[in-house]
Amino acid sequence: MTEPAPVYASGVDHERLTAQLRFILEVDKLKRILRRNLLVDGSRRENDAEHSWHLALTARVFAEYAPAGTDIDRVVELLLIHDIVEIDAGDTFVYDAHASRSQRERECVAADRIYALLPEEQGARLRELWEEFEAAKTPEARFAKAVDRLSPMLANWHTDGGTWVQYGVSKEQVMEKVRIIAEGSEALGSYAAALIEDADRRGYFAG
Amino acid sequence: MTEPAPVYASGVDHERLTAQLRFILEVDKLKRILRRNLLVDGSRRENDAEHSWHLALTARVFAEYAPAGTDIDRVVELLLIHDIVEIDAGDTFVYDAHASRSQRERECVAADRIYALLPEEQGARLRELWEEFEAAKTPEARFAKAVDRLSPMLANWHTDGGTWVQYGVSKEQVMEKVRIIAEGSEALGSYAAALIEDADRRGYFAG
Ligand SMILES: [Ca+2]
Repeated sequence: MTEPAPVYASGVDHERLTAQLRFILEVDKLKRILRRNLLVDGSRRENDAEHSWHLALTARVFAEYAPAGTDIDRVVELLLIHDIVEIDAGDTFVYDAHASRSQRERECVAADRIYALLPEEQGARLRELWEEFEAAKTPEARFAKAVDRLSPMLANWHTDGGTWVQYGVSKEQVMEKVRIIAEGSEALGSYAAALIEDADRRGYFAG
Repeated sequence: MTEPAPVYASGVDHERLTAQLRFILEVDKLKRILRRNLLVDGSRRENDAEHSWHLALTARVFAEYAPAGTDIDRVVELLLIHDIVEIDAGDTFVYDAHASRSQRERECVAADRIYALLPEEQGARLRELWEEFEAAKTPEARFAKAVDRLSPMLANWHTDGGTWVQYGVSKEQVMEKVRIIAEGSEALGSYAAALIEDADRRGYFAG
């Protein structure tokens, strides 16, 4: 862990600010966690930090496709923090059934460590947001999940099938993700379904 | 420019969605725009997309240091889009006086092109947010600027002086940035000042 500079700012609760800085410096590591999918231009693998930025902006642009009454500010907040646990737990490829089984446990241990760096009430609040995202029960979490699932589909379509081709993913496996998208947004679900039909015509799926 | 997949989603305004997808695919390029400063661990240069994510999260964590009444959701929104113009205009190093003179013009041309990819009213709204950030007149824009200026200071301090040492930056030049931070947040301004005093003791500044 990176220790904040040993300096005192006048008029500021030093212990509190130091805890916040410790968290901010720690999450910088998310920039080094690589996902499977490539950037849209195919030049390299995407990292979790830039991915989170792209999702947050995408959620704003697609706000009108969320169910009426969805709080987009909270969707953005969920997306900003949703992958932080991967600093310790690593990125779990959505089509890796073996890794997915141990994922929840590994991610909880990571959340215990990383959110505890913050002042207690602040860490608890961010951790609750992460649990909300994971549970996918609120419209905000479902819409955030929809955007999160759509994003690698776009990247794959634009990189000649990307990870679908590379890892031999079947259309059936991808259709499970389309269902998750449709649960968060009818419009984005409809678009994802059309995109997958097109990808199928192009021969991007295994089996 | 990357063209969205030629597919039609049922029940969705195709032209509108295609314009939004064009924008979302275009801004993926921000992941390839490199800044001068390194990651906190010193391993490589930071890109604009992951930088924007880190700032948005930092603004949330430091929300209590914004003036009372500051709308942190809008601060986050400003930070998510603040560097998009750099896709065309490139990153302008804050201590490069020559590049800074042509920066505003280059960035306006970029904003004209990139925000126009979106449906008109949506593009106009995001562009207005960018202008708000640039003008630094609202508490939200000032707090966003404060976080944006503090971030490379943290990275520099944690990488043995980073770009301050590499480009021979003077303490006087850095103190101008500390003033910008103090305009957005008294507490963060106070912390930045203490950090710079410490960096000075460590001999990180030129002159
Ligand atoms: Ca910049």
